[in-house]
Amino acid sequence: MTRWRPDETAIAGIGQTEFSKESGRSELQLACEAVAAAIVDAGLSPSEVDGLVTFTMDQNAQTEVARNVGIGDVQFFTNVPFGGGAAAGTVAQAAWAVAAGAADVVVCYRAFNERSGARFGDAGRTIAAMPPWMAWYGPFGLLTPASWVALHARRYMERYGVNNADFAPIAIVDRMHAANNPAAWFHDRPITFDDHQASRWIVEPVLRLLDCCQESDGGVALVVTTAERARDLPQTPALITAAAQGFASDADMMTAYYRDDLLGLPDIGLVARNLWNDSGLRPTDMGTAFLYDHFTPFVLMQLEELGFCGPGEAKDFCTVENLTVGGALPLNTSGGLLGEAYIHGMNGITEVVRQLRGTSVNQVPGVEHGLVTSGTGVPTSGLVLTRG
Amino acid sequence: MTRWRPDETAIAGIGQTEFSKESGRSELQLACEAVAAAIVDAGLSPSEVDGLVTFTMDQNAQTEVARNVGIGDVQFFTNVPFGGGAAAGTVAQAAWAVAAGAADVVVCYRAFNERSGARFGDAGRTIAAMPPWMAWYGPFGLLTPASWVALHARRYMERYGVNNADFAPIAIVDRMHAANNPAAWFHDRPITFDDHQASRWIVEPVLRLLDCCQESDGGVALVVTTAERARDLPQTPALITAAAQGFASDADMMTAYYRDDLLGLPDIGLVARNLWNDSGLRPTDMGTAFLYDHFTPFVLMQLEELGFCGPGEAKDFCTVENLTVGGALPLNTSGGLLGEAYIHGMNGITEVVRQLRGTSVNQVPGVEHGLVTSGTGVPTSGLVLTRG
Repeated sequence: MTRWRPDETAIAGIGQTEFSKESGRSELQLACEAVAAAIVDAGLSPSEVDGLVTFTMDQNAQTEVARNVGIGDVQFFTNVPFGGGAAAGTVAQAAWAVAAGAADVVVCYRAFNERSGARFGDAGRTIAAMPPWMAWYGPFGLLTPASWVALHARRYMERYGVNNADFAPIAIVDRMHAANNPAAWFHDRPITFDDHQASRWIVEPVLRLLDCCQESDGGVALVVTTAERARDLPQTPALITAAAQGFASDADMMTAYYRDDLLGLPDIGLVARNLWNDSGLRPTDMGTAFLYDHFTPFVLMQLEELGFCGPGEAKDFCTVENLTVGGALPLNTSGGLLGEAYIHGMNGITEVVRQLRGTSVNQVPGVEHGLVTSGTGVPTSGLVLTRG
Repeated sequence: MTRWRPDETAIAGIGQTEFSKESGRSELQLACEAVAAAIVDAGLSPSEVDGLVTFTMDQNAQTEVARNVGIGDVQFFTNVPFGGGAAAGTVAQAAWAVAAGAADVVVCYRAFNERSGARFGDAGRTIAAMPPWMAWYGPFGLLTPASWVALHARRYMERYGVNNADFAPIAIVDRMHAANNPAAWFHDRPITFDDHQASRWIVEPVLRLLDCCQESDGGVALVVTTAERARDLPQTPALITAAAQGFASDADMMTAYYRDDLLGLPDIGLVARNLWNDSGLRPTDMGTAFLYDHFTPFVLMQLEELGFCGPGEAKDFCTVENLTVGGALPLNTSGGLLGEAYIHGMNGITEVVRQLRGTSVNQVPGVEHGLVTSGTGVPTSGLVLTRG
């Protein structure tokens, strides 16, 4: 039986809209712009696309995107669930379908007006459409992603003596990278440690304003095809060395509070085991990483689950020097969700592709392999990509 | 590069709840009962399951099903869009993931209280939550699946001189099969041609009551794994010889009225081409078929798109004798969506599996291959299965 074989599929094209706080147009328009841009980047025409994958949370049906972009017959389509946990999962689904021979050229996309339209961080929105299970949390004020994450992170802070200042390097390095990135909302706007510590509490004593990602309008798309075909296309292929989805026992959407221990991120742990196992690579092989940075504490916890450092060691690993170009793990070099934009994690994948192509605004010299993770605190996914 | 290889994956287990008009319990309960039953049928334990696939329209998150059934770590999960077009698509996604080595044992499921809960046929429900595009159709009374399908079928009837009486054999044969099936809602209740012609118009002059499928409560699940593993399990494997999804240009959800010609079902045509191409088989190789029978006219149109007969010939092909055991194409031998239950097409897949196992209540002798299609008039999917 066929088992996963590294580097048989690749990301051959990337596309995006501008990232803003008010796009001024429909989510479908954003999706089509990003998809069309990715197809052009790959050197393909729309009629060569035969697969379309997005999030269950995305409002843009594959039929509408196909019609408006000029894509013809489509023979692979699916929607990956669980919010931002789906990002790398869209690429994983595409890679599996291509590897199985179900499709040749799959475009993965995500587009939304998450700032000017329905905001995830709007507690009133949660109250207005509260799912039944939320009644266990809502009455206690747990109505936004920040509140859900903070409760979880609090346990980690207690166990390892971590405090909010330990999260500052993530915020600083992301904004430092964003400052060099013309596509980033925080272009030319770096922050200092004092800025971080002076920013107002969102959830005391865990999250300050500068620990929380943006809300953004925009769209991102990626083209997945066989490595063989990608080698004949204009861009340096980002080979898909490993692609994993995962949720562990008792998983939940942001509120997995009933596990035996709140300490870790077992869903990321499961993804990590599959990524390292399937790729045959180790954390130290990664020249760069995009780690989903919706909230800074979960970046520290991810570094431990992924094996970049041991339990409780992330606060010492996370220095600005270590996490930028020239350091042990140049992280979120586009600025990430904190600094560039919050396109539900998809803009992290495009940045690792740029690193492998050698076209990042914060280029790490000689990157061979890059790591991507997706939403944390939810069923999630990840990728190990390799320069083709 | 790996291309699709027939018969490397298989359906190793099937499970279902009772089919009713009022289940008296939650959709999650139905989903878990069906999933647990399918796992037992496959001779596996819940902890061996590592993938879960359902419809985007299904309300039962993989995390909830896993928790309640006792499934541990899950490393493959996705949701197939476009209503009943997703049915075979869930098995296709599972097969591709298993073939690519992303999962070992995937359970596909669909469960709903579609009769006692939110009914698809409730025009008031469509009005209450009318998507923007529906404003082109709703004001003219196109508010239910029956109305959408009838407009489409009317063109076919005009072109080929088909009238409502030509749809009767589908309704009669399905109810004849259901009459022998204790699980069917219409167990022991066959109908005659006169019954069909005497049933009231739903959309005159296209659809009478007996041309329309049921609304049902219930759940169905299927276990997909490698053919190699399936051969070591208790049940005769239903090998997945071909699995296809498809939507053609200008596809839409039930209302693809802007194509150059309303005559055919090009989405099914695309799926058909892939099924025959990937399997190397022909329509005459099929010992039985489940063709999605939400409304009788689309069964005739499917037979033509699938190559069982030429354009306009289905009305002559469709005799009761031809479509039952001993005929050219024993069809929907469980009673189908018209006679057994409307579980969004998933109960058609289980019936073809039973035929290949030799355990149908209307068993066709010596079935080697069976065909499955999913929702028509929407982006859809299909399977060719083979006795293992």
